[in-house]
Formats: sequence, structure tokens, C-alpha cells
Amino acid sequence: MLDGLMMETPLTLTHLFWRMGRYFPGQQVITKTADGTHRYTLADHGIRTTRLASALQRIGVQPGERVATLGWNSYRHFEVYFAVPCMGAVLHTVNFRLHPEQIIHVMNHAEDAVVFVDATIYPLLAKIRPALKTVREIIVMDDLGNWADQDGTLEYEAFLEGGHSDLAWPALPENTAAGLCYTSGTTGLPKACLYSHRSLVLHGLGVGTSGVTLTDRDRVLSIVPMFHVNAWGFPFAVGLTGYELVFPGRFMQPTDLAGLIESEKVTYIAGVPTIMAGIYQAVKAQGNDVSSVRQATVGGSALSRSLIEGFDGLGIPILQGWGMTETSPVASIGVLRAQMDAWSDEERINRRLKQGPALPFVEMRIVDEEGREQPWDGVSSGELQVRGPWVIRAYYNEPRNAESFADGWFRTGDVATIDPLGYVHLVDRVKDLVKSGGEWISSVDLENAIMHNPKVVEAAVIAANHPKWTERPLACVVRNDPTLTREEILDGLRGVVADWWLPDDVVFLDEIPKTSVGKFDKKLLRERHGDHLLKTEP
Amino acid sequence: MLDGLMMETPLTLTHLFWRMGRYFPGQQVITKTADGTHRYTLADHGIRTTRLASALQRIGVQPGERVATLGWNSYRHFEVYFAVPCMGAVLHTVNFRLHPEQIIHVMNHAEDAVVFVDATIYPLLAKIRPALKTVREIIVMDDLGNWADQDGTLEYEAFLEGGHSDLAWPALPENTAAGLCYTSGTTGLPKACLYSHRSLVLHGLGVGTSGVTLTDRDRVLSIVPMFHVNAWGFPFAVGLTGYELVFPGRFMQPTDLAGLIESEKVTYIAGVPTIMAGIYQAVKAQGNDVSSVRQATVGGSALSRSLIEGFDGLGIPILQGWGMTETSPVASIGVLRAQMDAWSDEERINRRLKQGPALPFVEMRIVDEEGREQPWDGVSSGELQVRGPWVIRAYYNEPRNAESFADGWFRTGDVATIDPLGYVHLVDRVKDLVKSGGEWISSVDLENAIMHNPKVVEAAVIAANHPKWTERPLACVVRNDPTLTREEILDGLRGVVADWWLPDDVVFLDEIPKTSVGKFDKKLLRERHGDHLLKTEP
Repeated sequence: MLDGLMMETPLTLTHLFWRMGRYFPGQQVITKTADGTHRYTLADHGIRTTRLASALQRIGVQPGERVATLGWNSYRHFEVYFAVPCMGAVLHTVNFRLHPEQIIHVMNHAEDAVVFVDATIYPLLAKIRPALKTVREIIVMDDLGNWADQDGTLEYEAFLEGGHSDLAWPALPENTAAGLCYTSGTTGLPKACLYSHRSLVLHGLGVGTSGVTLTDRDRVLSIVPMFHVNAWGFPFAVGLTGYELVFPGRFMQPTDLAGLIESEKVTYIAGVPTIMAGIYQAVKAQGNDVSSVRQATVGGSALSRSLIEGFDGLGIPILQGWGMTETSPVASIGVLRAQMDAWSDEERINRRLKQGPALPFVEMRIVDEEGREQPWDGVSSGELQVRGPWVIRAYYNEPRNAESFADGWFRTGDVATIDPLGYVHLVDRVKDLVKSGGEWISSVDLENAIMHNPKVVEAAVIAANHPKWTERPLACVVRNDPTLTREEILDGLRGVVADWWLPDDVVFLDEIPKTSVGKFDKKLLRERHGDHLLKTEP
Repeated sequence: MLDGLMMETPLTLTHLFWRMGRYFPGQQVITKTADGTHRYTLADHGIRTTRLASALQRIGVQPGERVATLGWNSYRHFEVYFAVPCMGAVLHTVNFRLHPEQIIHVMNHAEDAVVFVDATIYPLLAKIRPALKTVREIIVMDDLGNWADQDGTLEYEAFLEGGHSDLAWPALPENTAAGLCYTSGTTGLPKACLYSHRSLVLHGLGVGTSGVTLTDRDRVLSIVPMFHVNAWGFPFAVGLTGYELVFPGRFMQPTDLAGLIESEKVTYIAGVPTIMAGIYQAVKAQGNDVSSVRQATVGGSALSRSLIEGFDGLGIPILQGWGMTETSPVASIGVLRAQMDAWSDEERINRRLKQGPALPFVEMRIVDEEGREQPWDGVSSGELQVRGPWVIRAYYNEPRNAESFADGWFRTGDVATIDPLGYVHLVDRVKDLVKSGGEWISSVDLENAIMHNPKVVEAAVIAANHPKWTERPLACVVRNDPTLTREEILDGLRGVVADWWLPDDVVFLDEIPKTSVGKFDKKLLRERHGDHLLKTEP
């Protein structure tokens, strides 16, 4: 074997940070704040971020130490995003919507040394502070600039002023840890994913060559919370092509977001289907001009036909990607191929309902319960397993690792098909499949079919216990029209799904309970309604 | 310090090769041949390339061994491009337009074990074969399929048939050597650049996020010879987004290329200015429909105003990149920024005359003769130095290494300015600058100004020896109108360049001699005309 003779330039966020200020100094960063709109440039961001890192050094933050954030999407959070990893420390973005006990767990598990917190979130932090074992310093980010240092906290702007702007950044090996995110913990305590500079950089390059290519002509509305898997990577990748960012601050209501799209002429939006549906409703209700948007992307849950049709009606193409906390997150993006231009609208919509081909350097396979790899025929299903340079090889400090990996592949816990062109289609979570008499029924397929009825706001299908079949599907439905009946729902499914898939019953709810990241909380639904059929069946 | 916990997936061409066949199996590869047009798909390419690698294993090619090609741009060359590096060996693409003595030198220096050669180039190889010390096997690629094994050579198709298509590719570390290219050797013996899998992959990702983003809707005409710095990376990066390739075979005349653009509906062309100017002339003369082309890119020499205006007239935007054999090659691409949309046409053309901002992860600086870094003000000039993951850290097996590197930077030998937005502008080669009385005069600026006259076909300015000023500029001009005089040329320069830059004389030539890669051979010009002023000055 012979090695090449190329420079060993490490792939680090430090380069992307330098590049932002050097090549795109005039690009705007816009944040909605309590008293208006904050605007500055990437050049400003560069100076302030450098001061911030210097100030963190001054209070003794060491390479490898964890620095936490509990923050809304804002320019200050964006500064912390680079100051911490580029100084060699680790950015731990805490999901402050977790249960307080879980927040205590993750912050103690991470051994966070310093915490950045938005003033509006501070009361939550103050409450759990006695339980935090490792936190030395709390720095409060206050829109209104009138934070009176209290409880020994520091105010962000005063803290930043204490740093200087001619810091020499350390030369970091590319495998240096840069970020720490926890899974949402729907099946137990959250688990930790420790990203490296290399993995975050390659994630950005991979997304950038996926066909969803952002340039300096784009203005991205940062909808995905910055505590949620690196806000899908948008803040880190700015340095590649210099696109502009619009941060909504804590004004995350769909009506606010729709207004921001119009006022700031946003070109690109990305978020979970629930919030995108909310934006659609807000645009229809408020009459916002959203003609500046050239592309919308959803992830986190499956894109529905009605959302595709809704956005098509707005003149905005919408597509979906797929990923997990464990995959940094983006692993696939459902861009349509040139050869599909000739297809019918219906065929193209069916393809857009899939999660798309894997990004470069991500590999996927589907395996059955015996570990046998299944063919890419669009029909055979199995557990989706992935590997690649931005997939975790282990959870951080975690005894439960063994169950999540197989022969160097990460086991996603999702059931999927892959078609001959490599488009993956998520059928269900392994644990959400309905196991009826030894056969599998996809709860997701049933949900999509039920939600096709315009009287349905949302629908979740769960595996309910059944005396004969072990499990049978139960539909939990939120309706916007009280005349909608169980029979109408079941009738709507006949001919669309196999007869034996028809839910045994429908329960109408005011709301489907959600997890902290906005997904259906099927665990809770099952606790509440899992025995429904035992009570109602004859 | 703390390391991330991400998978250690290597960045290799093997993944890109796998991805081409798995995700883009139906995309076309088109080659012009002696008796028509050869077409097949990336799926076909995958099967044949695998057989080829297997056949190479069968004749004993070892990991790390060098396998040479002397070939035109064709699907077979494209097969060798992947078979060799993916089996762990090193692809050495030989520039067969070098002087035979230089070809002997590079092939012995590389210690090539096996050679792939086009039948039409075989006579050249046969002549030098006795001087080749390490070549064990010669495999001939013949368009017409009627190669009678002679001189102990093997015929490509028969050789390939001997391999099988279920080869298990080796798992290669990403720093494994993948390719070997030699510089064109204008200043001495050619020097060798040994690329790694990692560097070629990152080059592809870097170009792919530069703003010149190819997708599976693109069809790229492969004009840059495959022996010339990896054909600028186009063949290797197909697996990222699945664009289609059109290979012209040995039909490299501008008239042929213009015809191919029309008949194959090419969307993207890239090449040196000379060949692009030829294509422009051919299109004008033949009336080809080139409306399918959405982008043209030049590199290798500076883009001229007249070429910009010519292509603008065809409705084809043209831009330039910059790079060297030592930079894999692409280091910068002159995409215009969003903020320049508001500029005047003149300002935008002036910007397009620069070589553009560096790609992500490439860094540039300019330093004066004392090694002091110069500001990015668009005025200060100095030697351009670069570093990055696809820049060589040393030439392969080369005693002259020390002079080419400084503190981890590669010294390009080019003199450049960089403006506040990071656009680099190459003023000249250090060795081509005219040193007149202690001041520098840019030969390139003078050439561009002279070539603005439509009666000028091409012009090269060299440093001619001068009794008083040491050196003075001498213009070597090819005219298409015999009425063009020395005085008219000098008058055209007055007011455009400083008076003391005006060439002392003009010599009219039938042709500017070119190097093997089509650049002006100023070394030869200086040998022939360097003493011109000593003879003519009073």
C-alpha cells in the first residue's frame, strides 16, 4: 500500500467560521427579538464570537469541557455555536422542552461546566439548578438588555465585553468532539451523541451536494430549534456558501413564522411537518406573500400528501429528508431524479412520499429479524440500518450501546423499504408496528390514509392489545368536523389498505399528545388507550 | 481534549464508484468513436470496471503499484479511472503530448507496472518501449475492436473478459494513494503529485459546493484531457450527483466538440481558453445549436474579455476557475456573489476577469519577496501560496521539494492580488514577470490588452533582454489581418496600461508555440526572441 502526499488539513468548524467572515462578511443575520428585529453581518458575528471564546477561556473553560445552551434560535445562540467548538470545547444544546427531571439527567450526564440560557428560559433553569452537579457558571442572554445579574449569573453582553477579538484559535485535529446532542428519549432516558468537527463538516458538504444546494442568494428561516440536532446543520454550513439566516427567537408560532417569511423575503424553509402545516394554515389565514420561498423541506416525520398539495397550491415545492439525532441528522433527501420529469403527477407525488436516496457517503441497508439483508425492490421491508462518516459509532458514556449496533451498522429502529433507485421509504418504527396474528401492520400507512380526509386534523394509529390477535390497530383521531364518524373513517380506508388492516375501532380525541420534539407520543397514547379493545370488544 | 464518537468511514473513490451504479444506474456515458457513438449506462460501467479490476488482480497488480494510461477521453479510460484506485493501486495518467524523452522519464520515475494505451497512440509507446524499465504488460484500447495482439500486448476487451464481476473491493484507508499526475515541466523535468482517495473525494465535494453545482440533469462534455490533472475531477465526482458524461474520444477539434454539444445536448462545458475560443469560432462558423449549454467554465489560463463577450453572445454564461496540478486541480471558482447583481455590466465583467474566491477548505495568501503577507486590498500583489486538503504536501520522490513549500504552504510561483471579497487575480507567473529597472510589469495584463484588438489572434509578451533596463517587454503577436502594424498595437495600449509598460517592440509570428497542455511556451519564445531588443535597439 502507498499513501498519497497531500496536506493533512483537518476538516474543522474553525475553517468554516473563518471562511464566513473572510468570504461573506456582508451577509446578514437577522433575529426577531422582544422589541423588534436585530440585524448584523457575518463580519460582526465573527468579531463577537471571537470575543466570546476569549471570555470563555478567561473563566477557565478547557478543551473538551461541555458548555450547554438552553436557548431559542438567535444570533447569540449562533455565536455560541461557533465559539465553543472552535475553542476545542463541546457545545451541548439542551432541549429545554424535556421534562425537568430529564434536563437534570442530561446536564449531569454531560457534566456541563457552563450554561448559556435565554432570560425567558432562566426560571426553568433556576428551579433545577440545585440538582445540577457540575455547572460552574450561568450566562444569561437577554433580548431587552436589562438583565440584573442575579443568583450569581453573568449577563451575556457584559461577559462578551470581557473577551478580546484577536484570539489565536487552537489547531484542532478533525476528530475533536464539537457537539453533544441527546435523543428525545421516547423509550427511556435520553442517550448522547458526540459529534466531531469532521462529522459536522462532512454533513454540511454532503447536504450541500444533495441537490438542495444553498447559495449566498438564499435566506434560510431557522425554524428547527437550535437545541434539536444542530438545527439540522444549517448554522454550521453557512461558511460553505454564505447563505443568510433568519432566526425567529422565541416567536415560533406559525403566524409569526409566516410573517417573518414575508417581511424578510425568506427563500428556504425547513421544519417538521406539524410546523409546516401550521405555516400553511397561517399563510392561508393571514394572506402572507410567500413568493420569495423557492424550496421547503420537511423531516422528523413523514411528509403527507395533503401537505404536498397544500404547498403546491402556494407555489412552493416541498420535499422531505430523513435522519435522526444519531445521524447528525440528515441521512437522505428526497430530491426527484431527472428521469422522473416524464412521470405523471401522481407517480411523482408517490415518490415524494418516500424519504429519498441516501446522501453521499451514507450507506443504508434493510435487514429482517434474522439479520438477513433484504433486496431493494420497493416491497421487501426490514429494519433500516445506516453507516457513514456522520453516523455515531457509539452513544457517549452509555451502557446500552450494544443493542443499537450490528457489524458496524447503526440500527435505526425504523422499518423501511428501499426501491431500485435507492429511495428509502419508512414504513414505521419497529416498536410502533401493529403485530396482528404474526403479521405486521404499518401504523404510519394507516395514519396517512386517515389524514387524507379533510375532516381529520391529525390521526395516530397505535397497537392496542387484543385477546385473539395479540395486537390490533386502534385509530386515535382529532376531527375538525363533529359529523365525522367512525364508519366514515373506516369506509375511507376500504380499498386503500388491505381489509385486515382496518382499525378495530376509532377514538376521537381533542389532541394527539406530542413528545418534546413534536412527534406523536405513541408511548403515552398506548398507556391511555392500549386496553381500549379489551374493554369494547365483545 | 475529547474525541467525537462518530464512525470512521473512510472517504474513498470506492464509495463514489459504488454509488454511481447503485443510485444512478440508468445515467448515460457517451463516447465518440472511430465508427460512430458508443453509449452505455453507469450500471454497465460498474460491471465492466469490476471485471477490469479483477483482471488486473489476475495479472498480479499489487496495491500501491502504478498503472499508467496513455489515452483519449473515452468510456474505457473512465473504467480504468475507477478500477485502478478502487483496487488499491495508483492511476498514473500520462500526458502523451510530452516529448518522448519526458514520457520515458515520467514512466520510469513512476515505475509503472502496467500501461493502458489507445490503439492510435500505440505507435508512440512502441517507439519508447525499449527505454521503459518497469512495464510488465501493455493493454491496448481499440475503438474498432480489431486489434491483433502484437508485440506481446493484450487487447482491452479480451483482457476484461478474463475478469469476473463479483470482486470484493478492498477496504482502503482514506489516505491511500489513488492517482499520480506530473506537472507539465515547463521549467525542468516534470514533477509528480500523488493524490489520495481522501483528497480526490474532498476536491469533488468542494467543487460541488462552489456554486457550480452539477446534478443528474446535467450532461458534461469531458473536454479537458483525462491525462491532465484528473480531467479537472469530473470523472471522479459523478457518483456524488450522477451527472452524465460525454467523451469526445480522439475527436478533439473544436468543430467536433461543437457538433457533439449540439447532437448530445450537452449542458456543461469546461476547458482551457484556447479550446473554448475554438469552440466559439466553430459554433459561429457551423451554426451549431448550443442552447442546451447552461454553463461554461475555463481554467488553465486567464479568461479574456473577448471570450466572455463571445459566450455572452451565444447566451452561455462563462466563468473561470484556477488551479494547478499541485491543487488537484481546482482551488478557486469565480462565481459572482449575490451582492454583485446590482453592479453594472462593466463591473461584473471586471470581476469575472478574476479567478474567484477559494473553494471551501482551501486557504490562500499572498506574500512579498521577503515572505511578508500582503493585504487583501485588490492592489497589493505577491506570490500566491495555498494550502488545503487537496493541495500536495510534497512532490513524490523529488529532491527539489524544499523550494516549493514555505511553513506548510505550497508556493504556486504565481503573482496575484486578492481583493476584500477574497477574489484572487493572477497577475503573472513569477518567472514571466518583466523586471524592468527594478519594477515589475505583468506580461499577462499586456497580453489581454493586446488581444482585445479583433485583428489579433493571439499574443504573448515575454521579458526580452535589454542593455539598460535589464528586461523590457516584447510582444509576440499572431494577426489575422496583414494590415495590423506595430504602431496600431502600441497605440491601442496607450491609456490602457502605464506608458512605461509599453512593449519596446512587436514581432509578428505565424503561431505562438504551445506547451503540451496548450499554454503559451514562453520558455521557447524567450530562447528564440529573448535577444531581439539587443539586435534592434540603437
